[in-house]
Amino acid sequence: MKRLQQAALASDYALKQTAFMCNNIGPRLSGSPQAARAVEYVAAEMRKLGLEVKLEKVMVPHWVRGVETGELTQFPGMAPGTTQKIILTALGGSVATPAGGITAPVVVVNNYDELNALGEAKIKGKIVLYNVKFDEQLAAQGNGLDAYGQAVAYRGGGASAAARLGAVAALNRSAGGKAYRLPHTGGMGYAEGVNKIPAASVTAEDAETIAHLAAQGEVKLKLVLTPQTLPDAESANVIADLKGSEFPDQIVIVSGHLDSWDLGTGALDDAAGVAVAMQVANLCKQLGLKPKRTIRVIAWMNEENGLRGGTTYFQNQRNNLANHIAAIESDLGAGHPTGFSAFVKPQAVPMLQPIANLLQSSGAGLLRIADGPVEADISPLQQAGVPGLAPIQDNRTYFDYHHTPADTFDKIVPRELAENAAVMAVLAYAIASLPEPLPR
Amino acid sequence: MKRLQQAALASDYALKQTAFMCNNIGPRLSGSPQAARAVEYVAAEMRKLGLEVKLEKVMVPHWVRGVETGELTQFPGMAPGTTQKIILTALGGSVATPAGGITAPVVVVNNYDELNALGEAKIKGKIVLYNVKFDEQLAAQGNGLDAYGQAVAYRGGGASAAARLGAVAALNRSAGGKAYRLPHTGGMGYAEGVNKIPAASVTAEDAETIAHLAAQGEVKLKLVLTPQTLPDAESANVIADLKGSEFPDQIVIVSGHLDSWDLGTGALDDAAGVAVAMQVANLCKQLGLKPKRTIRVIAWMNEENGLRGGTTYFQNQRNNLANHIAAIESDLGAGHPTGFSAFVKPQAVPMLQPIANLLQSSGAGLLRIADGPVEADISPLQQAGVPGLAPIQDNRTYFDYHHTPADTFDKIVPRELAENAAVMAVLAYAIASLPEPLPR
Repeated sequence: MKRLQQAALASDYALKQTAFMCNNIGPRLSGSPQAARAVEYVAAEMRKLGLEVKLEKVMVPHWVRGVETGELTQFPGMAPGTTQKIILTALGGSVATPAGGITAPVVVVNNYDELNALGEAKIKGKIVLYNVKFDEQLAAQGNGLDAYGQAVAYRGGGASAAARLGAVAALNRSAGGKAYRLPHTGGMGYAEGVNKIPAASVTAEDAETIAHLAAQGEVKLKLVLTPQTLPDAESANVIADLKGSEFPDQIVIVSGHLDSWDLGTGALDDAAGVAVAMQVANLCKQLGLKPKRTIRVIAWMNEENGLRGGTTYFQNQRNNLANHIAAIESDLGAGHPTGFSAFVKPQAVPMLQPIANLLQSSGAGLLRIADGPVEADISPLQQAGVPGLAPIQDNRTYFDYHHTPADTFDKIVPRELAENAAVMAVLAYAIASLPEPLPR
Repeated sequence: MKRLQQAALASDYALKQTAFMCNNIGPRLSGSPQAARAVEYVAAEMRKLGLEVKLEKVMVPHWVRGVETGELTQFPGMAPGTTQKIILTALGGSVATPAGGITAPVVVVNNYDELNALGEAKIKGKIVLYNVKFDEQLAAQGNGLDAYGQAVAYRGGGASAAARLGAVAALNRSAGGKAYRLPHTGGMGYAEGVNKIPAASVTAEDAETIAHLAAQGEVKLKLVLTPQTLPDAESANVIADLKGSEFPDQIVIVSGHLDSWDLGTGALDDAAGVAVAMQVANLCKQLGLKPKRTIRVIAWMNEENGLRGGTTYFQNQRNNLANHIAAIESDLGAGHPTGFSAFVKPQAVPMLQPIANLLQSSGAGLLRIADGPVEADISPLQQAGVPGLAPIQDNRTYFDYHHTPADTFDKIVPRELAENAAVMAVLAYAIASLPEPLPR
């Protein structure tokens, strides 16, 4: 384990893999040619290492971004004949506006209570802006996921809530930190039986500007979104096995998700996660380590807008769950890991503590017992009782880049990526080599 | 002076003026309807205070941004049928590409020496990318202007240097800090007798990506820019006088520039400067202060892409320079001021030191003697001997937003803007009330 950790810290394999996925392939939204190329690429890299590789067919949503523009066509004090540009991005899954756009007054609300208090009389025919601030303080304290959770509720469900009251479009303030006029995209969904209206995220700055002006008088916005939802596309999870020497049927998954949003090149989210999983196999091969159980590298498809990869795998493995000893995923960036979280039975702690102790030498010795599934792709497995684990990254800046054009390769700190690889490698190899499986 | 300082710190007048210029008017590029509206607005506000207002005619360049897109059409490892988006923005003054764009291989250089070493053989027919990093360390130490100066040389002169060797377009890495995939625009110029080629700034991230890929093999970029240079437009400097009680012909200028780039709303650059200058007049009126000399508020037009306001004023006043006692301008944001710089004779120090001492109570007590003109619009006056002064702002984050879409009202810290107003007000009132003019 010590050798594995040191080798991980000294290697740039994960960094090179991340660079290739981001720079040479690019954005990898489900259904895109780049996502298809990424599947081929990871499969080929794993075959190069001598792993047994399988592409598991996954049918994925195929949503394609189009034109996306916003401009204020009316606001107090405006110069005659002008408009003011609003920077926004369509949410994944959103329907399009009519070709000529939608022009309507904007109503600004700070939460669902305010929306509902206004009611149909004030909302009908309007564009609703949810001006919900991402809690930067919470994120700065390391609780970025909590801050994200608060804001993302409006991104996910805001359109249908507004449509129920007759709104013609819904905007939300970007669910993410910092303010460099960057829109944060992400998934959204429509409630059954409710009119589907276009949905987009505006930047924090544009939300502030609209709120400032709307407090002074009527503000009208022209919104043009031309995304398309095409028929589901065939794609795949990449599954690559490093066969166990004693219990080849018993599986420890190491994973990240291969798809990304389309605005950036998905470096932090989640080329880094795939790369550190690939690195586990690479290091075992390099060092000639033979785990007792099979280490299965999975590059999941479609975490971002459907979770079809995780759910398809679960369906296909539902009669083989007992052989899944653990599932590990990294999907919260590539910041310095302070340890790992584990959704496991309390009896597993004595088995995991020695691993945490070893990782302490690179500052990753925290063992946090989670009270629910960790990470999305592996959550169906965990809900069915498979122990789930994930590195705990320093995510204080993660949500500044999350789902924006700025999630690019340069955001990866090489040393910190290697630290993440060390955590995943040691964790996987140790669990794959335990005398007894983790209790469940 | 103490009363003036305290009143400035307690007032939100400058903040409200800044908000109006940014949010209610918007981007104010020279020649735009918003710039015209801003001229009217500031004139009306100054008239409201009872000042004598004059619009000084200034003919300004009228450059209008169009479509601006970049995409890599060839690079090592690319998925068939894909391109990779490059985020860029045309530089002010750039000519357009042909309507169908320019597609050509990219040559990456780190400086002019590398460009010239490659020579015509390697540059002809290519797009040159100047991958010159903005020195963030220097900026973090408070020397943002030095860091900017290093990078901006390539923005300003890069196109002609590349065109001399036969390049078909020039790109520069954005001259500014932080990396949130934001392009920084700005002015550029063409050398006489050299072919005019299109010029744009790419984001720091895109520069890194292109450099990374170009080191592996051929990279081709398709560049589309459709800016237009229209005939010069009529615009104006706003000149508003608060007449002096004893020497009304003697003038102390307080100023900022009213035009801005078009990507953001020009909050830091330079609505804030105009607003603190307006505040000087407002406070004198509010407190019933009657300076001995005239305090002249000037909102300059066209600092960004021509300096026509500053040069026109100088031309019109060239026989009245002796009556210009001092010119003060704020154009480096609205960060906490630590004092002021002065391009003055050493004999002026004993007259300025007591002002600095008073300002020390708000942390703005530094008196820095400059070895050349401070600020651009007032530089012709200074070159002709008029003492020039400027607040010294904490500019450590200024170049992160400079000339980007993110230079918006929310970047103004209300308290710090008020501190800037206090510096300008105290400085102007004190100099306007000195028994003798500053030596020259």
